[in-house]
Amino acid sequence: MKARVHITLKNGVLDPQGKAIQHALGALGFSGVEDVRQGKYIELDLLESDPTAIRENVEEMCKKLLSNMVIENYTIDIE
Amino acid sequence: MKARVHITLKNGVLDPQGKAIQHALGALGFSGVEDVRQGKYIELDLLESDPTAIRENVEEMCKKLLSNMVIENYTIDIE
Repeated sequence: MKARVHITLKNGVLDPQGKAIQHALGALGFSGVEDVRQGKYIELDLLESDPTAIRENVEEMCKKLLSNMVIENYTIDIE
Repeated sequence: MKARVHITLKNGVLDPQGKAIQHALGALGFSGVEDVRQGKYIELDLLESDPTAIRENVEEMCKKLLSNMVIENYTIDIE
């Protein structure tokens, strides 16, 4: 099965990469862009087929490796 | 309104970052991880409120700045 993980910066954490994109869009003539936030998107192909077990497993992966819990949030979608 | 953009590598394009994650997960004792692909996730806050106009606009942004059309695909979700 597939697990899709989104890792985003917590509210209040400065996102210089997002700001750079916002400014670049402005310079290219795109107006009306109020805010840009950039995060990571990770697709995992897993042998396991039980969604509950997968969720537990992937949460563990997020805590141990994929995200920095101090400044980042993660969401997990399984399909 | 918000637009969420996912930028992923096209099939067949090597993903060293994904491979690094896969190996690190293996080293941490997570088994059964068959493949990992890493992409980018961008959230845009836009003043515009017409979904059709937003989609056109964001597609233009993807083509001009956000993605590299040679090796990357993009998907746009609007809400």
